[in-house]
Amino acid sequence: MFKAVLKSDTLKGMVDIVSTLIDEIKFTINADGMTLKAVDPAHVAMIELEVNKEAFDSYEAEDTELGLDLDKVKGVLKLASSGDMICLEQDEIHGRLVFKVGNITRRMNLVDTSTMNDPKVPSLNLPSMVTVASDELLKGIRAAESISDHLALKSGPDFFELSCEGETDSVSLRLDKDKLEEIESPEETVSQFPLDYFSNIIKAIPGGTLVRIELGQDHPLKLLFGLADGNVTVNYLLAPRIENE
Amino acid sequence: MFKAVLKSDTLKGMVDIVSTLIDEIKFTINADGMTLKAVDPAHVAMIELEVNKEAFDSYEAEDTELGLDLDKVKGVLKLASSGDMICLEQDEIHGRLVFKVGNITRRMNLVDTSTMNDPKVPSLNLPSMVTVASDELLKGIRAAESISDHLALKSGPDFFELSCEGETDSVSLRLDKDKLEEIESPEETVSQFPLDYFSNIIKAIPGGTLVRIELGQDHPLKLLFGLADGNVTVNYLLAPRIENE
Amino acid sequence: MFKAVLKSDTLKGMVDIVSTLIDEIKFTINADGMTLKAVDPAHVAMIELEVNKEAFDSYEAEDTELGLDLDKVKGVLKLASSGDMICLEQDEIHGRLVFKVGNITRRMNLVDTSTMNDPKVPSLNLPSMVTVASDELLKGIRAAESISDHLALKSGPDFFELSCEGETDSVSLRLDKDKLEEIESPEETVSQFPLDYFSNIIKAIPGGTLVRIELGQDHPLKLLFGLADGNVTVNYLLAPRIENE
Repeated sequence: MFKAVLKSDTLKGMVDIVSTLIDEIKFTINADGMTLKAVDPAHVAMIELEVNKEAFDSYEAEDTELGLDLDKVKGVLKLASSGDMICLEQDEIHGRLVFKVGNITRRMNLVDTSTMNDPKVPSLNLPSMVTVASDELLKGIRAAESISDHLALKSGPDFFELSCEGETDSVSLRLDKDKLEEIESPEETVSQFPLDYFSNIIKAIPGGTLVRIELGQDHPLKLLFGLADGNVTVNYLLAPRIENE
Repeated sequence: MFKAVLKSDTLKGMVDIVSTLIDEIKFTINADGMTLKAVDPAHVAMIELEVNKEAFDSYEAEDTELGLDLDKVKGVLKLASSGDMICLEQDEIHGRLVFKVGNITRRMNLVDTSTMNDPKVPSLNLPSMVTVASDELLKGIRAAESISDHLALKSGPDFFELSCEGETDSVSLRLDKDKLEEIESPEETVSQFPLDYFSNIIKAIPGGTLVRIELGQDHPLKLLFGLADGNVTVNYLLAPRIENE
Repeated sequence: MFKAVLKSDTLKGMVDIVSTLIDEIKFTINADGMTLKAVDPAHVAMIELEVNKEAFDSYEAEDTELGLDLDKVKGVLKLASSGDMICLEQDEIHGRLVFKVGNITRRMNLVDTSTMNDPKVPSLNLPSMVTVASDELLKGIRAAESISDHLALKSGPDFFELSCEGETDSVSLRLDKDKLEEIESPEETVSQFPLDYFSNIIKAIPGGTLVRIELGQDHPLKLLFGLADGNVTVNYLLAPRIENE
């Protein structure tokens, strides 16, 4: 059983983030909220999403699973304006999820979740951490886009830098301590990441969101941020690109 | 002889509506105004347009015909801003229509109308009628677009519904009496229509226009609405899609 | 040696103009400013650009040359907002130009200028001259675009006209003395020009710029206008299209 009402913006925020990695997802639902774990087909990045029941305007649920085609959900979101409420109700008899937006009723077949296994999210202990506004990261991505297909993230005791080295040209965005919300990076660490993955996730984050970045030398990148006043938390892991691989 | 001045918005409104069905049209002109009848190449839909001379800021005409290529007229309309006046004058010697927009003079060859016959508009007696804002219809169309290529219109004593049934998914927009300007539908009637035709004509109607819809069980749909303060009247007929055809 | 700071809008204005003709350019630089001469690969049009050191917020230079790939410079300009400052500094050791926009540093390889020869700009004595706002020219271009691929420019003692004659249709934009900033055209002159070249340069001129046009019967067209409060002057020459050529 699952019946809930939430702001279209909250649902859109979640869908935008997760659809950077996959098209079909499984929400695991209980009385306290929903969770989702997903990995992209190439196994380069992983998302863990936790949605508190406080992210909803009303929420009633027993243990269940919902398999959704995100392209269809995006179609429903186009019928709503920012601030509209969306009502979701599981129709267990027909295996459907029923969306209500204003006077529109949209019945959507659920995706079979029996073959969807939750990936194991590794626990990482990364030595460097910065917290920065998503908009600053976006600037660095835009600058990098024409130079190369990978991006270096570097942190030191008092700076965080995005840089990109092409064959003849290069670009860097340096954020000193005063441009950062937080920094704890006792030593210099640098790792390279595929620009397209990093760019897709950063572009999917709503403007003005604070993003916590955890880094280690040639280690995966961990991004942590919240949506819907922190009632949705996102944990994103991205594999590094190791030189001479 | 034909010489007239009208708002670019009025001409644009007419062209947007008629070009959903055909590219070349014939206006039949007399001292009181102009009329146009057109059917699409597949004979699925028909438009009857009546333009009062009050739709014009100035109007002088004797009995004549004007054959126009609507793509060319759209090109002229792009040179005008909303609120601009367009002057039209027939050049009978060269077989041209001369458009003046501000300090631009555009001479356009007329299309030969000798092979264009006006279609016969059938008179229909349809039992159900609702009047509704075009914007509500647009919402229903947007919701239907990803589900199926045909749309059911249904009316009952106190509601009007657009719905769309796909193989696995479905959507409906229900408008109760309070969302309708007028309704007279003693019995429930439902008919199916091709979504693309219905969508094209509704999208061509300016926002906020009241549209009168006449329906009968498995009968053609009739749409009636006005442009330019009611000085242009449009009568649109759309053939139903009969199941098991 | 070259080190300078200028508004991103000033650099964008120059790049937009010059990139209508070529992709790789050479700036000739001295202590007073920079100049550029360029001809398009088909030798139909030519640009001469003079940039005063007053166009810059700070300017220090000794005699040098900078070869630039304009597509790369456009990429840097996308990282700046209107009003942002751009710092340029030649790195003579690595043969690079270093751009700084906010906290972004972009190092760009210079293009080899050893094979770029400045074209000779012919001195022309054209009998007719009008000065007109670029926006009026833009209107005439938009009207001409669907009619033909060449445009006639005509001036007389008290008017300037852009016109375009197709096989069946035609269009003209007539600007009488009151729509012109200046006119000195003792006799009627008319010449034809390729619409695409004329359109590209006019569309690249910022809105509201006054353009001085010099014309002679079947002679090249000369356009003169300023950017950045007149501290950048542009001289553009376009070969006429001679009938029965």
